[in-house]
Amino acid sequence: MGRITQRKQVTRVYRDGQSSHTTAEGSAERFALRTKQDVLAAEEPLEIRLGGESFTVTMRTPGNDFELVAGFLVAEGMLSSAQDLHSMRYCAGTDELGNQTYNVIDCAVDPQRVQPVAGGRRHVLTTSACGICGTASIDAVEKTLPAASGRGPGLSITAETMLQLPDTLREHQKIFAKTGGVHAAGLFDAGGTLMCLREDVGRHNAVDKVVGWALLEDQLPLAGTVLQVSGRASFELVQKAALAGIEMLSAVGAPSSLAVDLAERAGLTLVGFSRGHSANIYTHSHRIKARLDWPSQEAVSAAPRPSPR
Amino acid sequence: MGRITQRKQVTRVYRDGQSSHTTAEGSAERFALRTKQDVLAAEEPLEIRLGGESFTVTMRTPGNDFELVAGFLVAEGMLSSAQDLHSMRYCAGTDELGNQTYNVIDCAVDPQRVQPVAGGRRHVLTTSACGICGTASIDAVEKTLPAASGRGPGLSITAETMLQLPDTLREHQKIFAKTGGVHAAGLFDAGGTLMCLREDVGRHNAVDKVVGWALLEDQLPLAGTVLQVSGRASFELVQKAALAGIEMLSAVGAPSSLAVDLAERAGLTLVGFSRGHSANIYTHSHRIKARLDWPSQEAVSAAPRPSPR
Repeated sequence: MGRITQRKQVTRVYRDGQSSHTTAEGSAERFALRTKQDVLAAEEPLEIRLGGESFTVTMRTPGNDFELVAGFLVAEGMLSSAQDLHSMRYCAGTDELGNQTYNVIDCAVDPQRVQPVAGGRRHVLTTSACGICGTASIDAVEKTLPAASGRGPGLSITAETMLQLPDTLREHQKIFAKTGGVHAAGLFDAGGTLMCLREDVGRHNAVDKVVGWALLEDQLPLAGTVLQVSGRASFELVQKAALAGIEMLSAVGAPSSLAVDLAERAGLTLVGFSRGHSANIYTHSHRIKARLDWPSQEAVSAAPRPSPR
Repeated sequence: MGRITQRKQVTRVYRDGQSSHTTAEGSAERFALRTKQDVLAAEEPLEIRLGGESFTVTMRTPGNDFELVAGFLVAEGMLSSAQDLHSMRYCAGTDELGNQTYNVIDCAVDPQRVQPVAGGRRHVLTTSACGICGTASIDAVEKTLPAASGRGPGLSITAETMLQLPDTLREHQKIFAKTGGVHAAGLFDAGGTLMCLREDVGRHNAVDKVVGWALLEDQLPLAGTVLQVSGRASFELVQKAALAGIEMLSAVGAPSSLAVDLAERAGLTLVGFSRGHSANIYTHSHRIKARLDWPSQEAVSAAPRPSPR
């Protein structure tokens, strides 16, 4: 694409420690300026159309756009398999110089199975006529969840593997390494093997791209997998993971209260503050094996200890 | 409100360093589990209605809801002063127990000045019929920008003051201190005095709340001010700051390419990676004075030096 990152000139200002300076007003610290080239993560709008009608616009990092669109439609409850998605193509949008922008995608979906919702995204949440509340939103999501049970033994992951996921994610973030400015979502199997990693300026987009990859690879629902994300765990990320059939969502940052509520109801294992040496398990901890090959579960850690978060 | 944070039970898993254990398969690290109470940032949906019609739903941390709505409508280009906003009230939404949810707000805006856009948010970006691209989006924003010039001398801030803003922001983040899981936006004057700070699980919401506060206090446009945010600088945050007449946006994280493009065009000073000892200035650096009381601007930092970001 060539549009995933962009170079910009930047003025860097920094404390110049070696040259403090005293004036009549007292000590005035000295600063220095330097001009350099900086690499930024690209951000451009993507318009998603359904059968030629504008559905939504999202700001995203270009790249893996078809995955983004497919994953977004899964999260809206409009797709659950690749068979429902008849076609996707870049619309003939051009900029003022006549160049294709690659910023409009038109989709054809199965009209028998898909009921487009008027007015664009977030309408999964607005089912109650008035009195909208977290409970109503969760109810709406629950109705469209895939059956998480009855698909074999399910996910079982060791604490050691789980705690390594953030480091593995970071090591594979190519755009972050250049820019320091994008979110990532990585799909892992129970052994900690990375199946798919996507980056984007928007953390929701990174998850949509991973889910869209799975849909296009005909791997939905994603039983037996863990989704590791670089930021916090919001309601919408839990929703996206659950709708894709992912069994565990692990975040480097904090979850919100509604994220925990939905994960509890949806049967998803939700992990937050995963920082290498420790993590918080908010829901459905049975999928995490804390001590491999250790005979007695009861003998350990009877005494509470202080644990900084 | 009592709903800004919520308590949840959490299982904490952590490496138990003192008790490594060797099995037939080799060294297996031991982990310990502990159950504790955790404080989470609340997240609930807020439905915004205009004249009784549903306009959008956003997930937010409850609190300062009227500010959030007012600031959101400023960012949509639908309000520029408190006079345009006739009324806001919580709609009589109730949950299944009959309790008011405080999750629906109905607004009455001046019909002469406000043209509601069908289909909800983000439509500021969708003005070009096809061929949507960054340039078209920027053009759309530029049309609604307040005149940034001709409002007196304008913002002038020292590098020292600018570099202290992230620490000041963090010190005043009450919800973050409890939960470790929210974004913040703080409005400062040129002397580094905090004028308004708002927190939210959504970083866009935190900015909307600050701008809405200013609208309700009849302080728009916000000439002479700096907005410091806890995360990255996206296109939408630059858009929100510029529409409110803020002269400088400073982010702890990275900006996106489109954020820099819009800031350049909108006359906004954009700062990223502001980390106490250094920061990157992407646009309009003239508002930042690098060395207070220092006689010669030319004498310093002629030689480039390595500077890790």
